[in-house]
Amino acid sequence: MKIMVGGTFDPLHDGHRLLIKRAFDLASPDGKVIIGLTNDTFANRKVHPIHPYNERYKDLVRCITSLNTDVPWEIEELHDQYGSSLDTDFDALVVSEETFPVGKNINHLRRERGKPCVEIHMIRCVLAEDGRWISSTRIWRGEIDIHGKIIQKEEKSE
Amino acid sequence: MKIMVGGTFDPLHDGHRLLIKRAFDLASPDGKVIIGLTNDTFANRKVHPIHPYNERYKDLVRCITSLNTDVPWEIEELHDQYGSSLDTDFDALVVSEETFPVGKNINHLRRERGKPCVEIHMIRCVLAEDGRWISSTRIWRGEIDIHGKIIQKEEKSE
Repeated sequence: MKIMVGGTFDPLHDGHRLLIKRAFDLASPDGKVIIGLTNDTFANRKVHPIHPYNERYKDLVRCITSLNTDVPWEIEELHDQYGSSLDTDFDALVVSEETFPVGKNINHLRRERGKPCVEIHMIRCVLAEDGRWISSTRIWRGEIDIHGKIIQKEEKSE
Repeated sequence: MKIMVGGTFDPLHDGHRLLIKRAFDLASPDGKVIIGLTNDTFANRKVHPIHPYNERYKDLVRCITSLNTDVPWEIEELHDQYGSSLDTDFDALVVSEETFPVGKNINHLRRERGKPCVEIHMIRCVLAEDGRWISSTRIWRGEIDIHGKIIQKEEKSE
């Protein structure tokens, strides 16, 4: 199957890792994975500062190569939420609970263009040590690390 | 991965076949598939008459064996929408666009019980020849067959 997935991946945390791993699991060796990576202009709509595209690109490549996968893949620069997903022929989209609505929009817009809709695989929420979601914003605020480990404020102030 | 999927499967049409096939695709050979089949009391809430459990069970087994799969599986009798999905440890649920809300409820109720949420794989809509969805109701009305082929009214009245 040909699978698409997308994001800003900044910083690339364990939730992103599951998202990317699942895309490759679903693809099967004769399939392909397209990973959309938001460009700096689009990514900078976020509430916190974003690392430059090139740095995020390198982290993403490091994450993919660590999977030791035989599945072909490519990274696509995203100028908006959709990239080539509205016009490309592919089979399934991998999303988080947070980005599921984007997946639904993609199918809605594909239907309007006369394209077949795609399957949507929503991964489970990846929780931090405190039972709340891992998110880039929480990492940026210094509450947790990329694996969801609580950062002790006491240690930081010493 | 351990996968769950459920339905009334009456009559078992091409949309159901994709649902069941995808559950086995996701499971991987070391995984397992649990297929929930609604019992007659629960199934009879539908707007149209339902074939007895035993007949639906046999059709379901025929569909599964036609996949020639090595993945272990079992059929669970469903007395309600959820069956054992609220308490069992499993990895992902396969749903259609129509049953996606049930999947969301399952995760919501699992969280309330302190169980980890599961991944939800929503298959694409399977369309009939006329571009509209294949559904049991449309088949029951005699509009289409189980493969989505339009049934010509003229032929029927001859």
